[in-house]
Amino acid sequence: MFTMPKPPYLGAAYYPEDWPESEIDRDIEKLHAFGITCVRIGEFAWHRMEPKPGEYDFSFFRRVVDKMKQANIAVVMGTPTATPPRWFTRDWPDALRLDPDGRRVDHGGRRHCCSNNPHYNEASMRIVEEMAKEFASDENIIGWQIDNEIYTGNAGCFCPECVNRFRAALKKRYGTIDNLNNAWNLNLFSQWYDSFEEIPAPRNAWHNPHLKMEWQTFQNDSHIGFVHRQAEILHRYVKVPVGTDTMPVNGMDYRRLTEKLDIAQFNHYNTPENLHFCAFWHDYMRTFLNHPFWNTETATCWNGSTTITQSVKPDGFCRANSWLPIALGGEANMYWLWRTHWAGHELMHGAVLDTSGRPMLAEEEVRETAAGFRKAADFVRETKVAADVAIHFTSLNWNMFEQQGIVKGLNYQQSVVGRFYKPLIDLGLRPDVIDAHAALDGYRVVFSPLMLTLEEAGLPQRMEQWVREGGTWIVGPLSDERNRDGARYTDCLYGMLERLMGVEWKYALPDTEGRTAAAWTDGTPMPADTWFEVSNPGRAESLATIVKGHRAILGKTVVARSRLGKGQIILLGALPAPETTRLLAQKLLPDAGVCLPEVVGEVIVSPRRGALNGEIVLEYAGKPASYTLPAPAVDLLTGEALAGTVELEPHQVLVLKR
Amino acid sequence: MFTMPKPPYLGAAYYPEDWPESEIDRDIEKLHAFGITCVRIGEFAWHRMEPKPGEYDFSFFRRVVDKMKQANIAVVMGTPTATPPRWFTRDWPDALRLDPDGRRVDHGGRRHCCSNNPHYNEASMRIVEEMAKEFASDENIIGWQIDNEIYTGNAGCFCPECVNRFRAALKKRYGTIDNLNNAWNLNLFSQWYDSFEEIPAPRNAWHNPHLKMEWQTFQNDSHIGFVHRQAEILHRYVKVPVGTDTMPVNGMDYRRLTEKLDIAQFNHYNTPENLHFCAFWHDYMRTFLNHPFWNTETATCWNGSTTITQSVKPDGFCRANSWLPIALGGEANMYWLWRTHWAGHELMHGAVLDTSGRPMLAEEEVRETAAGFRKAADFVRETKVAADVAIHFTSLNWNMFEQQGIVKGLNYQQSVVGRFYKPLIDLGLRPDVIDAHAALDGYRVVFSPLMLTLEEAGLPQRMEQWVREGGTWIVGPLSDERNRDGARYTDCLYGMLERLMGVEWKYALPDTEGRTAAAWTDGTPMPADTWFEVSNPGRAESLATIVKGHRAILGKTVVARSRLGKGQIILLGALPAPETTRLLAQKLLPDAGVCLPEVVGEVIVSPRRGALNGEIVLEYAGKPASYTLPAPAVDLLTGEALAGTVELEPHQVLVLKR
Amino acid sequence: MFTMPKPPYLGAAYYPEDWPESEIDRDIEKLHAFGITCVRIGEFAWHRMEPKPGEYDFSFFRRVVDKMKQANIAVVMGTPTATPPRWFTRDWPDALRLDPDGRRVDHGGRRHCCSNNPHYNEASMRIVEEMAKEFASDENIIGWQIDNEIYTGNAGCFCPECVNRFRAALKKRYGTIDNLNNAWNLNLFSQWYDSFEEIPAPRNAWHNPHLKMEWQTFQNDSHIGFVHRQAEILHRYVKVPVGTDTMPVNGMDYRRLTEKLDIAQFNHYNTPENLHFCAFWHDYMRTFLNHPFWNTETATCWNGSTTITQSVKPDGFCRANSWLPIALGGEANMYWLWRTHWAGHELMHGAVLDTSGRPMLAEEEVRETAAGFRKAADFVRETKVAADVAIHFTSLNWNMFEQQGIVKGLNYQQSVVGRFYKPLIDLGLRPDVIDAHAALDGYRVVFSPLMLTLEEAGLPQRMEQWVREGGTWIVGPLSDERNRDGARYTDCLYGMLERLMGVEWKYALPDTEGRTAAAWTDGTPMPADTWFEVSNPGRAESLATIVKGHRAILGKTVVARSRLGKGQIILLGALPAPETTRLLAQKLLPDAGVCLPEVVGEVIVSPRRGALNGEIVLEYAGKPASYTLPAPAVDLLTGEALAGTVELEPHQVLVLKR
Repeated sequence: MFTMPKPPYLGAAYYPEDWPESEIDRDIEKLHAFGITCVRIGEFAWHRMEPKPGEYDFSFFRRVVDKMKQANIAVVMGTPTATPPRWFTRDWPDALRLDPDGRRVDHGGRRHCCSNNPHYNEASMRIVEEMAKEFASDENIIGWQIDNEIYTGNAGCFCPECVNRFRAALKKRYGTIDNLNNAWNLNLFSQWYDSFEEIPAPRNAWHNPHLKMEWQTFQNDSHIGFVHRQAEILHRYVKVPVGTDTMPVNGMDYRRLTEKLDIAQFNHYNTPENLHFCAFWHDYMRTFLNHPFWNTETATCWNGSTTITQSVKPDGFCRANSWLPIALGGEANMYWLWRTHWAGHELMHGAVLDTSGRPMLAEEEVRETAAGFRKAADFVRETKVAADVAIHFTSLNWNMFEQQGIVKGLNYQQSVVGRFYKPLIDLGLRPDVIDAHAALDGYRVVFSPLMLTLEEAGLPQRMEQWVREGGTWIVGPLSDERNRDGARYTDCLYGMLERLMGVEWKYALPDTEGRTAAAWTDGTPMPADTWFEVSNPGRAESLATIVKGHRAILGKTVVARSRLGKGQIILLGALPAPETTRLLAQKLLPDAGVCLPEVVGEVIVSPRRGALNGEIVLEYAGKPASYTLPAPAVDLLTGEALAGTVELEPHQVLVLKR
Repeated sequence: MFTMPKPPYLGAAYYPEDWPESEIDRDIEKLHAFGITCVRIGEFAWHRMEPKPGEYDFSFFRRVVDKMKQANIAVVMGTPTATPPRWFTRDWPDALRLDPDGRRVDHGGRRHCCSNNPHYNEASMRIVEEMAKEFASDENIIGWQIDNEIYTGNAGCFCPECVNRFRAALKKRYGTIDNLNNAWNLNLFSQWYDSFEEIPAPRNAWHNPHLKMEWQTFQNDSHIGFVHRQAEILHRYVKVPVGTDTMPVNGMDYRRLTEKLDIAQFNHYNTPENLHFCAFWHDYMRTFLNHPFWNTETATCWNGSTTITQSVKPDGFCRANSWLPIALGGEANMYWLWRTHWAGHELMHGAVLDTSGRPMLAEEEVRETAAGFRKAADFVRETKVAADVAIHFTSLNWNMFEQQGIVKGLNYQQSVVGRFYKPLIDLGLRPDVIDAHAALDGYRVVFSPLMLTLEEAGLPQRMEQWVREGGTWIVGPLSDERNRDGARYTDCLYGMLERLMGVEWKYALPDTEGRTAAAWTDGTPMPADTWFEVSNPGRAESLATIVKGHRAILGKTVVARSRLGKGQIILLGALPAPETTRLLAQKLLPDAGVCLPEVVGEVIVSPRRGALNGEIVLEYAGKPASYTLPAPAVDLLTGEALAGTVELEPHQVLVLKR
Repeated sequence: MFTMPKPPYLGAAYYPEDWPESEIDRDIEKLHAFGITCVRIGEFAWHRMEPKPGEYDFSFFRRVVDKMKQANIAVVMGTPTATPPRWFTRDWPDALRLDPDGRRVDHGGRRHCCSNNPHYNEASMRIVEEMAKEFASDENIIGWQIDNEIYTGNAGCFCPECVNRFRAALKKRYGTIDNLNNAWNLNLFSQWYDSFEEIPAPRNAWHNPHLKMEWQTFQNDSHIGFVHRQAEILHRYVKVPVGTDTMPVNGMDYRRLTEKLDIAQFNHYNTPENLHFCAFWHDYMRTFLNHPFWNTETATCWNGSTTITQSVKPDGFCRANSWLPIALGGEANMYWLWRTHWAGHELMHGAVLDTSGRPMLAEEEVRETAAGFRKAADFVRETKVAADVAIHFTSLNWNMFEQQGIVKGLNYQQSVVGRFYKPLIDLGLRPDVIDAHAALDGYRVVFSPLMLTLEEAGLPQRMEQWVREGGTWIVGPLSDERNRDGARYTDCLYGMLERLMGVEWKYALPDTEGRTAAAWTDGTPMPADTWFEVSNPGRAESLATIVKGHRAILGKTVVARSRLGKGQIILLGALPAPETTRLLAQKLLPDAGVCLPEVVGEVIVSPRRGALNGEIVLEYAGKPASYTLPAPAVDLLTGEALAGTVELEPHQVLVLKR
């Protein structure tokens, strides 16, 4: 009789189709031995399920699913649409992606077909429907994964189908060609188009940045459409949650992607050096959909293709890395992969077992993770992450920065994470990372760094109202400076901030050579670089000014504060060094009613509220650290009662129940 | 009533077609406020002037020109041929450039059409003629600019028209195919061609360097022809000077380009770190045509496309940079651009005004420049730069070095500027930079560094005669070592120097690893690197020898001097460090009758002679410096009387009238 | 009357077709003056020998060969198939190579035709046969060189002929398509092929590593076939040895290449910094065929194309470099080239004479080399290199590493040479570098580093037997871990070593960040990096263990030794630093009966045995060093009697006869 494993799930990607069927029983035995409760299967196995066009044969995976059921192992079923078989590309060679330089992509890898191709869509939807019928009622299938890591690389597909649909999408968006000409300022360089049919896909020229941004968005939307068409079919048959495993590439627009899905799924291969990037994405994933997200892929030992690109990780990293999604609001951590391939692509990747079936060197940490998940299961299920601070991060701004880099070397994600997110979490804060559409209720403070445009989801009006009702909005630099198309405002370089705050924009300037310096009004230096926006404060309060640089900007304001209704707006006019963000937060957050925990080092603190209360604490950088408990609690992993300041070993995890 | 502004002009590029027409009056008001006397318009506005094939509509620019006239603002009118509209490339897709890899360039940028395409030429010449008719008699149009920044990038266009014309050009040059086979040594690798039709455009192979050099020359000539065809039309209608705004890319051959034009126009985006490169090009520009050149583009604040690639400039740089062309013999400095674009390409570029119409941070310096130009206007107009030293720099040698790099890392322009020009101007010298065709009369000293070939414009005979009449010729290294085709001499590795000087060439050698060292005969080290040519001095005087290196070269001569008639030749056999050139000049120039001013630091001294006398002095590196006046003078910018040694602040400019 | 020069030959590449015929007599005079006894001609002169299709004209080269004969100069005759003339590519444009991106290669360089193209083969074989007839009986022709530097660059040719032959080759190798599908694990990513016709050439995708390896092998085999077809023709006519001049690119598979040839020919352009790579290849060349190999190309002064990429070499390097092939078992050293070209490609390359016919700066060293060769000629001819140690190095493993890089930054050749070969020769050892097929008799010790697969030539069985009979086998790391197809073993990650040695494989791990450290059992540190394989020693002796790193591997064995029969196997489980290999050799080799000479510095010691006895000793790094003679001997170069420790000057050569 089948007993459903409960979350939090510890899982692994499993490719039984690459092995003799006799291995399955051995593998199940070892899955149990490691405490793994869930396998993710099917994602690349199209040929095994449909060996000839229209001849479906699910008998192999039927046996796999049944054996897992008998073993009380949950299954996540993947649709195999990332790898159409050779018979498909042989019959429909035009379905292969067309590179910007006019070459068709070969069969032999992944993602080689165009998401807009009708034949590829037809074959994909057919197998998805057949799979859905076959596996709709298996009680151990806890969810579905559509396709695999779908996003736009290398500017996408340039086939005629794509180009035509791109033009149709532009027509839908702009209505008339002159609206587009005007929105993109196409008098410039005499680019002016007389019809949508004249618009080129951006291949071989110094192209217009708006054209390139819309192309990128269109390509991403093509993938989103492909995922949504599968979701629609699956929803007709299955009751468990449906998702698609995504990568840390925000150009895809998670909001639109997830709006027709049931669960956010996320793959990452971060290392001790950059695990805070993963935390950032987890803090983002959590804000989509009501269902706890799943971390669908991460490495046990190291990332590798046929060539390994990472070194062995230090002790404890695997365990901390496995706990991270759980701490931040997820309910599953799954390894890629269960057992290393014996031939072909990616056979040097770390796994739980090596090719010969012996454990790889993270074996103890996998077992400890499984044991920990069991001990803390109730606490995890009955609490949710509680955040009163948010950071904006949007797909539209990602794509705008991709095409309008502003200053050489400036990167949207790197800047938001490195200059804002990391200094904030190193203060022990737990922010939500939110899209423009997210509701603002409940946040005391919102950061909007590098929000080139605010023109999405009525954000200008919503931010103003939220501030008037008492919010503290820390905005800039490089925020509110473009309209939705990526064009500049022509009356003032800010869209709304000058008006709202009563400051007077004076100058903006790039400086990557240290010619410019700022200081807080008390004289403390305020390290910042790359980009400065300076103003005359007007009715705003000047918090920091320029103290070194071009004579035109000396003494001008670089951080300004204005009260608005019950709230306040802080305009940050320079790209802050991490210590500047830290100091800014320490100055402003307590006043805004945000409580700062006591931490030393690089520690993630995730407050959990619900039927139970407490927090999950995790040293993420592999260095000694400490955490001071606000009140005594029990660490569910050790059973120990803790109070006061606790020393944390590198990569230590505490699950503190109060 | 219109009052024509007088030179020196302070101007800016103005794109009224990108804005509501109502902005023009506001812009004119601000132009006046900044003291800007000239706008450059029209260069990319083909679509606005010919919105449909053959339907010309100049009404908009008619109004712009008229409004400028009413405001006493001069206009430079540009032909818009760099940006043919979409209707043109839609109707004539074969006019789009063909890349070396067989891809057509897309519509959407600039310079996307082939200068040899008949349809593109027809449409271009037609609009140029219509513009000429329309604007021929506007008294405030002070000159024309043909096209924009035309030169060959990425090896040019490979369309059938180009390939056929290339073969025709080779046939014209070599007469018979066997002349070409022999000149290029095409027995080598069995490349031998039986007809001109068999010669490939150099695309996908390890191609013959002579073929590649001729291809590059042909591509440049194609652009020159395109410019000349426009000039011929304009000359039929307009009386004011016609030019084309060029870039610091000498492959284009300024001599041939300017020989059918009336004025040299030059664009640059140099920074405090490399402003001496701009000075070099100004010293070159001055030597073409009788009309003072125009600096048609430079940045006020920084260079930028959608991504800025420079930092804000220090105080004073904008002003010094604006004065530089005036100091060195030009009569105009124009900014790119008046007001930053509000959308599309290049919207992050520095300007006078930002998109919203507020001044950018160089505003004070622009105003100061305008005021200075007015104060010094008479002096500038009534004096000319006086140079008694020259440096050779030719397009033929540029193109030869491009295809025959000699030693890895060696660059023709970098070497001539960094190792010769800069150390000479840092001694306070003001050299002319001259083409092979320039007359030699009046120069006391000529430097001919890296003149791989002298075989142009009868230079071997002319240099010999000029030396015999008293000139001091400092020649080498890497000079006189190739014939006009880029082939080596087969009797001696020098074409004429061994014979003229009586030295015996022994060895040449590369050394970028410091294995070789030279010293002057008094034992002073003579820093040099990369390339050494050593000889037995014979009847020449040995000025420096090899003191460290391979035993075969120890003690051999590396700098030799021979008297010839009333003059002398100094053969420099190694690529000198800047201090070597400085020392060489200090040793030789006073004897040759060249007077060295007293300067400390990096200072441009431009002696001006004519109805008035004096000099313009400019600190160009942003560091403290000093200049010792040869006689008391008045600084026209401050009205102050100066004498003796004057301390110069970073980027300070003096206009000294005696 | 002709007197045949005797080996060792000092030769040079000579291109009389590029010069007026009158130069030949002058050149011969100078060849004599330099003591050069052999010229290599013809290799690129197809057009001179067949100026029109089918019209052969050997009269020019007939006169060259005859003049050389009269001058007692030997000739190596090259077939010109690397440079088919323009008339050929004009008539057969499809014979031009097709790039992976679909572009035909242009005429104008070398190697522009596809080795599989039937028309190119027909024309090539025809001219080879005509040449063979013409020059078969010239007594001064001492050998033939087929083509020039033939190997696969840039992934080869993708023309339909190649793709079809590739599929045929796979069919021949695998028999059925399902054998291939299974061998390459093509369930993975649904790559499964239904027929050989569906297999793509690996162009534009993330391709399967086995596919890429087989493609690379196929491309190399195509060149080998092209060479063998020429050899077959030549063997019908000529009696002297036939070879082809190869490059240090082992993907070509020297064993299969040379199996139908008579002599190994090798080109290299090493410098003082990397001359040990050349020694490595010479030690490899020596092990093919019975005939002493020829070093067919090396620079006198520096390498250069139209741009020089090397600096002048220090004193003595040219002489030492010229002696190196002779010391290591060759019988010829030939310079590229005799006289620098006067135009076209490669005119900046160092040579014996410069373009003008004057000597270049290595002239004295060339003369000294010629004199030395004469003095030592008998000793060289009557002795052979004696080696009792061998290092495995195979083409199959080269190609496997190319497609499966294992760890980023790991390079097969660099690792074998830098981490094994160089530390061994710096102990004064003279190893043979051997292919998998080489017999093992006579070696006391064999190193098999990075032998990913042993599955070639029955090596697993042969190594076991050889160890049982007394051999010492030092194997690993990364050895015995793949089958012949590049797939992993699925029972144990070693194919045979665990079974033979009784160790238990535990873990493997990458580490390029210094997280892991090993030590010998006596506590001495054992520097190693990048890759570690650790085991439980079982019945083996643990020689070194992990002392720092992940807790799972601490204390595990990293160097294990097992006795087997009369011999022993040492399993090296980490990529050793050079000093680790040095220490390992010092520990193990004396016990294995290998005698270590006394040397200080970087010295090549080449023991020579035969009718005479002694050794050739050569300082190869340009630094002071010393060598201690095992017994008194006479240096044939100076005539001096030597004993005890001899100080060696940089690049000194001793030919010691006992």
